[in-house]
Amino acid sequence: VRTLGPGREFDLLQEIFDRLGPVANGLGDDCALIDVGGRTLALSIDASVEDVHFRTDWLSFEEIGWRATAAALSDLAAVGATPIGALVSLGVMGSGKRETGSVDPVLEIMGGVGACVASVGAKVLGGDLLRSEKYLVDVAVIGTVDRAVRRGGAQAGDGLWVTGALGAAGTALEALKKKKPLSTSLRARFAHPEPRISAGRWLAVHGATAMIDISDGLAGDAAHLAAASNLALDLSLERIPCWPGVEPLAAVGSGEEYELLVALPGEFHERDAAEFHANVRLSLTRVGSCLAGTGVRFLDRGRPVEVPAGWDHFAR
Amino acid sequence: VRTLGPGREFDLLQEIFDRLGPVANGLGDDCALIDVGGRTLALSIDASVEDVHFRTDWLSFEEIGWRATAAALSDLAAVGATPIGALVSLGVMGSGKRETGSVDPVLEIMGGVGACVASVGAKVLGGDLLRSEKYLVDVAVIGTVDRAVRRGGAQAGDGLWVTGALGAAGTALEALKKKKPLSTSLRARFAHPEPRISAGRWLAVHGATAMIDISDGLAGDAAHLAAASNLALDLSLERIPCWPGVEPLAAVGSGEEYELLVALPGEFHERDAAEFHANVRLSLTRVGSCLAGTGVRFLDRGRPVEVPAGWDHFAR
Repeated sequence: VRTLGPGREFDLLQEIFDRLGPVANGLGDDCALIDVGGRTLALSIDASVEDVHFRTDWLSFEEIGWRATAAALSDLAAVGATPIGALVSLGVMGSGKRETGSVDPVLEIMGGVGACVASVGAKVLGGDLLRSEKYLVDVAVIGTVDRAVRRGGAQAGDGLWVTGALGAAGTALEALKKKKPLSTSLRARFAHPEPRISAGRWLAVHGATAMIDISDGLAGDAAHLAAASNLALDLSLERIPCWPGVEPLAAVGSGEEYELLVALPGEFHERDAAEFHANVRLSLTRVGSCLAGTGVRFLDRGRPVEVPAGWDHFAR
Repeated sequence: VRTLGPGREFDLLQEIFDRLGPVANGLGDDCALIDVGGRTLALSIDASVEDVHFRTDWLSFEEIGWRATAAALSDLAAVGATPIGALVSLGVMGSGKRETGSVDPVLEIMGGVGACVASVGAKVLGGDLLRSEKYLVDVAVIGTVDRAVRRGGAQAGDGLWVTGALGAAGTALEALKKKKPLSTSLRARFAHPEPRISAGRWLAVHGATAMIDISDGLAGDAAHLAAASNLALDLSLERIPCWPGVEPLAAVGSGEEYELLVALPGEFHERDAAEFHANVRLSLTRVGSCLAGTGVRFLDRGRPVEVPAGWDHFAR
């Protein structure tokens, strides 16, 4: 529940909880977790909307489908789940007839959805088509999880780690806004983000106490994790793993990164991170610590610094 | 996948299957069925869009939420599943500030979603909010199923039965279009349809060979069942159970009824229907038979009659 903006969004979420009462179950985390037949299922839904999450002149329809699906699968990664499949509602303009030889957005988007789902060994389980002024890709995902990790389990003394490198999404958006071309690697990263499924599973199995995917930007998602775990986080700006050419202050403000922010017990050391890298083929970098208290503090070589608040989708 | 209209819709669905290849799983039925930990899960997604499925001057926001949720739960009913919960993406106009004391559409819609989900003993498991020019309620549902009934299992010799009475939805729409008031019972039926969960479960347990919920109208959904089961259906117009004051020809064309059309073995008799009624508190009426062949034929006291094709949502 991220699209309406932090302030109003969180108030509204609380009001929805209050309104629903006991019929609400597991709202407010990356996934709902339910037990069925001795297994734990993880479920999430994530809508991507034209001119909020994507623009059709920046991404192909195939890329739009992939990216929307990756965003939803990223929620499964954040609890340590293994995806089973996705259900997709696709909003497209009315009954416009297709010209012979032209690209059909529905087929192209579904092609991207299917490719992304296949990349994590899952299936397309169902769908619906609807008429919409703006393109809309709403993806519900389901997976199984052996050891579920929530946002709220971090302990004082835990280390705080980040997978991969941050800042590519923000850099790509800046370039696209200025109509500058993207390098091949930047475009691949922006248009085809990989949901961190095997990373999330590895971290869950190796003792992660809390985890969240970085969709609102590291600064914003760290605040979510701190609030849910009821503790304070200190992050070192100089330790942030940055995409080539990106400054740390930009990297921590970049959203839709789909990397994982994870709290791991103090005993988790660099040699464990090396084992993670050997298994998952992704870096794991310690960026800070969990402390008693509240709030998120960024330090630049020990000195507190101001960091811009959460990620605004480009069209706000 | 119903919103774009029969012809184009079914062609498109086939093209999506072709495009997705083996990554598609169970598309084209009311629900996807997947096995997890020895249990079978049923999943479906169903989008309701302003000016296609509802109008805000005809229904309250609470009713809009209920109706969209009932439509999705009806897909679970149609396979004989027991709902666990729903995930809801809600599209509303931008960041408009709420006036003090006024109704918040988000809270009202979610209230209706929650009430409908609670009415079948399920939960709201997650959600997302998005900006949309038109109100949008996209509901993904999950349930468990002991004996799943698909559209494609009917056999020549089976009887064809319908739960409840048909025609209220079409009658209500006609009245609303003419700005005529609805009777209390008609309004209740139109605004708060009950997903036929216990009916679907009872029928599944008692030998249903094929089942579909009536969302496109009896004529349209009978055609889906006939095609999936690869046989012909004869339906007797004079046997159609009609909402008070509705003619059979109107009843068979009325969509969004959310009753069940079910094929049951020839041994299933009126006394079994009486047992159904005693258990589920709903009528079950034999309307026809399954035969070798293809297509759906409506008979009026033995004489074939033309029946208008599928349900067009009111805004087409």
